[in-house]
Amino acid sequence: MKKNVLIVHAHPEPTSLTHQLVDVSAEALQRQGHEVLQTDLYGMRWKAVFDEDDFPTRADPDRLSFVTESGHSYSGERQSADIASEQRKLLAADAVIFQFPLWWYGMPAIMKGWVDRVWAYGLAYGYKNAGNKYRYGDGAFKGKRAMLSVAVGGPANDYSPRGINGPLEQLLFPITHGTLYFPGFDVLPTYAVYGAAGITAEGVAAAKDAWRSRLEGLFEDAPIPFRRQNGGDYPDGHVLARHVAVGQSGLLAHVADMETAPQAAEMGL
Amino acid sequence: MKKNVLIVHAHPEPTSLTHQLVDVSAEALQRQGHEVLQTDLYGMRWKAVFDEDDFPTRADPDRLSFVTESGHSYSGERQSADIASEQRKLLAADAVIFQFPLWWYGMPAIMKGWVDRVWAYGLAYGYKNAGNKYRYGDGAFKGKRAMLSVAVGGPANDYSPRGINGPLEQLLFPITHGTLYFPGFDVLPTYAVYGAAGITAEGVAAAKDAWRSRLEGLFEDAPIPFRRQNGGDYPDGHVLARHVAVGQSGLLAHVADMETAPQAAEMGL
Repeated sequence: MKKNVLIVHAHPEPTSLTHQLVDVSAEALQRQGHEVLQTDLYGMRWKAVFDEDDFPTRADPDRLSFVTESGHSYSGERQSADIASEQRKLLAADAVIFQFPLWWYGMPAIMKGWVDRVWAYGLAYGYKNAGNKYRYGDGAFKGKRAMLSVAVGGPANDYSPRGINGPLEQLLFPITHGTLYFPGFDVLPTYAVYGAAGITAEGVAAAKDAWRSRLEGLFEDAPIPFRRQNGGDYPDGHVLARHVAVGQSGLLAHVADMETAPQAAEMGL
Repeated sequence: MKKNVLIVHAHPEPTSLTHQLVDVSAEALQRQGHEVLQTDLYGMRWKAVFDEDDFPTRADPDRLSFVTESGHSYSGERQSADIASEQRKLLAADAVIFQFPLWWYGMPAIMKGWVDRVWAYGLAYGYKNAGNKYRYGDGAFKGKRAMLSVAVGGPANDYSPRGINGPLEQLLFPITHGTLYFPGFDVLPTYAVYGAAGITAEGVAAAKDAWRSRLEGLFEDAPIPFRRQNGGDYPDGHVLARHVAVGQSGLLAHVADMETAPQAAEMGL
């Protein structure tokens, strides 16, 4: 069945590994019969900094609260045109793919600024004006899928379960769990190309093949089994119930069935 | 003894909690006899996006590689003036404090872009042109201290050891370990004000007092005991030795003596 896929990407160099993998995405998804939309952050000179210029009509002209003004702008359709446009693309998408080079274990600033600005109060948080009721598995993006595709400069063993950088999927937890699962996306395990800094032509070819395979499973592969806030594991909406993830704490306590899930190894266990 | 302290901060509203805590920092540190420098990212309209404009003289005009051009610019003193100026402030500092609101479990884009642009190849990575030899406890910023001070919208129990967001110090690991410890900073446990979204005047007063206390220990408190790459725990420079952190994997395996360190609770164990 035909789906809509949005690709959000961040690299200014057309011949970069990131761009080459974006081209693979567009081509492979279109071949699958899907409609592909792109948000080329560098190409469109995306405004990265969330600031007062994003609130043309203020709820409080005297004191800038981002939460207040974001909610005021979103609910009253008073947002900047570029923010509203990205939200429309998101809401029309069945899946969103983020492609970027890993810079200091996170997104390049231009992409972080896309999140900061587009993830409005009333949409990505404070959904339905119900505080924290709809989050982590519920929210405006429920039913949609998301996946990260990252170009990593360093070698894979630095990111192995006992590698010095920490496991990649744990370093990305603020994005996969905190940014994407929070407003309701089902998040697939991250696709990573390691050693991107000194990659050979053969390495690029292999990375493209592996990425094509992952794209075939975009609508079929099992997402990371993050625990739903409203699924019973967090009776008060904040803390895990005693009988859940017994003896565990920290990031991985929020991933269910780690013993049996195929993602266990990738999450760094 | 008089020290130099650099405060890097990111909030455009002068009456914000972040700004109020920055004022406390400046005042308290000056009263201690220290020299305080500030980098007010919104105030100076910091350029957040790392792009080709940052490389006025290119090593390769045809293809933009950030690593190559960053190294070329840094080593040849061909950097943008704003980047070079921030690096001078960093190199003159004995301690660096980062003050920001937590947005989607990380830095606002304007601060991430400060890291992306200022953390040059040859300085913050690739130090002494020796690949990955000097990192995680060694590097250009060895002997300096760093600390995060964050304003967190949500309640503290969401960040408790079994709280739904994950423990704050684990969410910040890509910054504390991956961004600050990597080039050599000793990183103090994070100072956090929770519930910043709806904070009362009494809450602000208490947060200021607590922050003043933390500032008193800026040069005395024990840093997070991250394991040094060149301290023997990583014989190949990449993966923990078998006899170290036996049975552990993931982010916390890179913190030594978690059983006895006072930071253990704060790290979410």
